[in-house]
Amino acid sequence: MTVRSTDHGPKPEADLDALTDIAASEWPMDAWYAAAYDTEVGRQLAPFKVAGLPVVLYRTLAGVPVALADACWHRLVPLSMGKLCGDDVECGYHGIRYDTEGGCTFMPAQKTINPSAGVQSYPTVERHRFVWVWPGNPSKADPDLIPDIHWNDDPEWAADGKVIEVDAGYQLILDNLMDLTHEEFIHTSSIGNDALSNAEFDTVHDKETRQVTVTRWMRDIEPPPLWKNLLKVKYPEYDGRVDRWQIIRYQAPATICIDVGVAIAGTGAPEGDRSQGVNGYVLNTMCPTGPKTARYLWAIARNFAIDRQRVTNELREGVSKVFFEDETMLNAQQQAIDTNPGYDFYNLNIDAGGMWVRRMIKEMLAAESDLPPASSQEAGRE
Amino acid sequence: MTVRSTDHGPKPEADLDALTDIAASEWPMDAWYAAAYDTEVGRQLAPFKVAGLPVVLYRTLAGVPVALADACWHRLVPLSMGKLCGDDVECGYHGIRYDTEGGCTFMPAQKTINPSAGVQSYPTVERHRFVWVWPGNPSKADPDLIPDIHWNDDPEWAADGKVIEVDAGYQLILDNLMDLTHEEFIHTSSIGNDALSNAEFDTVHDKETRQVTVTRWMRDIEPPPLWKNLLKVKYPEYDGRVDRWQIIRYQAPATICIDVGVAIAGTGAPEGDRSQGVNGYVLNTMCPTGPKTARYLWAIARNFAIDRQRVTNELREGVSKVFFEDETMLNAQQQAIDTNPGYDFYNLNIDAGGMWVRRMIKEMLAAESDLPPASSQEAGRE
Amino acid sequence: MTVRSTDHGPKPEADLDALTDIAASEWPMDAWYAAAYDTEVGRQLAPFKVAGLPVVLYRTLAGVPVALADACWHRLVPLSMGKLCGDDVECGYHGIRYDTEGGCTFMPAQKTINPSAGVQSYPTVERHRFVWVWPGNPSKADPDLIPDIHWNDDPEWAADGKVIEVDAGYQLILDNLMDLTHEEFIHTSSIGNDALSNAEFDTVHDKETRQVTVTRWMRDIEPPPLWKNLLKVKYPEYDGRVDRWQIIRYQAPATICIDVGVAIAGTGAPEGDRSQGVNGYVLNTMCPTGPKTARYLWAIARNFAIDRQRVTNELREGVSKVFFEDETMLNAQQQAIDTNPGYDFYNLNIDAGGMWVRRMIKEMLAAESDLPPASSQEAGRE
Repeated sequence: MTVRSTDHGPKPEADLDALTDIAASEWPMDAWYAAAYDTEVGRQLAPFKVAGLPVVLYRTLAGVPVALADACWHRLVPLSMGKLCGDDVECGYHGIRYDTEGGCTFMPAQKTINPSAGVQSYPTVERHRFVWVWPGNPSKADPDLIPDIHWNDDPEWAADGKVIEVDAGYQLILDNLMDLTHEEFIHTSSIGNDALSNAEFDTVHDKETRQVTVTRWMRDIEPPPLWKNLLKVKYPEYDGRVDRWQIIRYQAPATICIDVGVAIAGTGAPEGDRSQGVNGYVLNTMCPTGPKTARYLWAIARNFAIDRQRVTNELREGVSKVFFEDETMLNAQQQAIDTNPGYDFYNLNIDAGGMWVRRMIKEMLAAESDLPPASSQEAGRE
Repeated sequence: MTVRSTDHGPKPEADLDALTDIAASEWPMDAWYAAAYDTEVGRQLAPFKVAGLPVVLYRTLAGVPVALADACWHRLVPLSMGKLCGDDVECGYHGIRYDTEGGCTFMPAQKTINPSAGVQSYPTVERHRFVWVWPGNPSKADPDLIPDIHWNDDPEWAADGKVIEVDAGYQLILDNLMDLTHEEFIHTSSIGNDALSNAEFDTVHDKETRQVTVTRWMRDIEPPPLWKNLLKVKYPEYDGRVDRWQIIRYQAPATICIDVGVAIAGTGAPEGDRSQGVNGYVLNTMCPTGPKTARYLWAIARNFAIDRQRVTNELREGVSKVFFEDETMLNAQQQAIDTNPGYDFYNLNIDAGGMWVRRMIKEMLAAESDLPPASSQEAGRE
Repeated sequence: MTVRSTDHGPKPEADLDALTDIAASEWPMDAWYAAAYDTEVGRQLAPFKVAGLPVVLYRTLAGVPVALADACWHRLVPLSMGKLCGDDVECGYHGIRYDTEGGCTFMPAQKTINPSAGVQSYPTVERHRFVWVWPGNPSKADPDLIPDIHWNDDPEWAADGKVIEVDAGYQLILDNLMDLTHEEFIHTSSIGNDALSNAEFDTVHDKETRQVTVTRWMRDIEPPPLWKNLLKVKYPEYDGRVDRWQIIRYQAPATICIDVGVAIAGTGAPEGDRSQGVNGYVLNTMCPTGPKTARYLWAIARNFAIDRQRVTNELREGVSKVFFEDETMLNAQQQAIDTNPGYDFYNLNIDAGGMWVRRMIKEMLAAESDLPPASSQEAGRE
């Protein structure tokens, strides 16, 4: 069921119940999180945090990614300080070994292996350039639940991105992305101008698919610098006004794909004909690493001039600069929240999308606590 | 009513009630604190802390200093990360604007402004080279209560100074200044010698004006190096003994002006004729920035050779070196107090002045808690 | 009474009661701890921590080491920031002085000295190149209780070592040394090989002397690189197999001397004839500086080629590299324990020695809490 907000903002009563959770730092455990870019995982033991849990990632000899709890069963030393022996992990301290399922395969100076010895292994899937890990109940780890970010390795698109280690809770990053009005104030030299806060926007949510979409069309506007340049890649001669769109699509708990672009003004883009425009996707997914930190994986994809590496590089570096401006602000916001515990937050119309995101997360959390034993702690090895 | 201590030290019962508050880190809110030097406040948004509160300081186009709470009403981001738009402040994240009274004048993407939206503004006065801020009940912010440090911009005096960010509570700095016996032990190479701990001193307090004065005369002594040099500025030929004075005047809660000088021995300085001497004022005022940190603004003023910039510079740098020795000790003292919670402190005769200072502060704190709503939190915008 | 474990490991029930104390960070107060190497203590005031207490160490004019609490009675400033006046310590802030017993000998600006004024002094003995301090009840400070590490200054041995400031509790370092199986996994390039985890070992404990001994003989093995080189110092021609020994001797609470060596295989070393071998002692003693930190003093002694300084240097640097590998692991283990409070630890056969060590410490702690007032706090100056 899809519900469209006609008032461009949350209702007063909704407002009230969201007041206190601005700094909410919880996350669902029964979810896929992108722990790392594919290139970050290889034939070495690399430490990551997924949903707050220390995890060691590596690939088997056959190239399949494996995720184990990054703490030896015996003395808690991080397994990532050890080494790979074939497909097994050997602890660097006392040499205890574990297979890809986390089962113990060797103990030093003794022949009998305690049958209960082992570490948690986590379901892992490599898809669309990311390594996704499921920290919760393994029996629910359905790969079909992995968010769709196919633009990241679709042959009709060119994509590249980076990772940001943010010193702010993942929900603050989601807030940031669900309202792009801030581009006008933070990103004035690249993608922001006053068309943003003047344009109306539309917020739609769907409780079943746990999606929220915020759509904003800015018609017949002067393009901001970044988009002016990108349109020139396709239309070197054109120097006029554009129709610009931002369609922000959230998939709970932590993925946001933003369909962005500009087309020559009046050529029908708002009605569906984007043929005289340039289109990009900003792909964003957050891995909560702690209550006040997150690993933010992003990429920028485009469907024009896809074989020009220089455009790929310039676009990646341009977005990287923009996101650095956000990162600075997010870190400052987290610090301010920490030093003002219990502050009553106020919401503006622009916060409508972000508030629906928080409701989706709340519902996932509620669903987890209702169910019988389903947390990662309880869903361990038998 | 002025009370003179004849015993040169606190009474035993007074001793007892002060034992546990050596590390006291409270401060009155209804008071003027020097947040910054005048030159630190201009047409940029500068973050400070006043009485523990984050405050953004700037000047209007007309040059008047303004102090607002440094946290946006909407999402708590520091306003000092934003920018000035005329006399208004624009938040750097979502563009919300506030006027010099803290009232909201703009919200993005909406025409109606929530009438309750705004941030706290603090009464501010620029006087004697400092920008004074009143963090408490605005209705009590009488400029006549600003401590007199007129030597800092009096045409008959030459003055200059610096700011020290001390990692110690402001009361520890007050302790340090109220007993200058320590000069003998910390500052042996400049202003300390054994005349200090041998000389008697006199402690006077006045509960109505909340002042404490400690007077010490050292008659017919060999001058310490710094004073020897200063006397030579006025009397290049003189190389003999001096009468030296230190008159420490505390004004609650956090200002201490020290009348210091030497005169040619036996020329009547103790009786009031300082004509054959050189006189300086060490001006000190503390702004508590947190329970264990303080912003310490100081200046050294003199009434001789006032047009010689070189003397000004040498004196400022000389005092700066001396204060660095104190800073090191104060930081170590704060750390030692933190690692020994509940330590029972013992007082010596030399602590008489410092203990009266603590009583004055205690009385101000008691007066605040007796009154109806007067704290900065409660005395906000209507 | 000496008890020999025949099962090469703790009994199941013993296993259980040790599960939760892996991170135990308590230490006995009635014990000698090596605070510093002899060369670290001289005619300057040097700050150390002994059994978690701040202590200032110095030598009298006659060269005798003195240990006083490193906090002035008056305002808690560290005495180590002051200076020596003959054999007395003068506080750097207000000039209060203390003698070698901690008694106050001078107060500024007053003639009467408060008779109760003073700081704690700690029994101190210089022996075998270390300065030993007794933080607990002074009346029990019997120098005969100092652990025997005579190899460190015995004329028939050449010894040298270093100090490591470890970011891990002292018990984790004891664990590390009581099981040398880990050499195979951490120290593969120097002293570890698979002979270690294959060899049987023998654990003996004595409750009266509070000693634990773990003995491991590896017969007719290929020597690891370090030992191969050392044997060549004595037998340049020999390139064959060896009998290797590791006899780990723990003396509660925090000293471990390890008798190590190799002899030409089959020449009778296991039976007592070490004449055709090379022998070393790894001397280790830990001073707990806090619940999660320790000062680790070590030396390596040998009884061959004792006049060759180059061998001394190479051996010291070789061991230093090996211990750095341990330090990295220990710091990581302490962090992992901190982030996993309440983790149930599991023990392997190799943990037998370490578990007896913990029992000895537990017994010392129990003995202290049973007795009437004996803690360092209560056993102060009268």
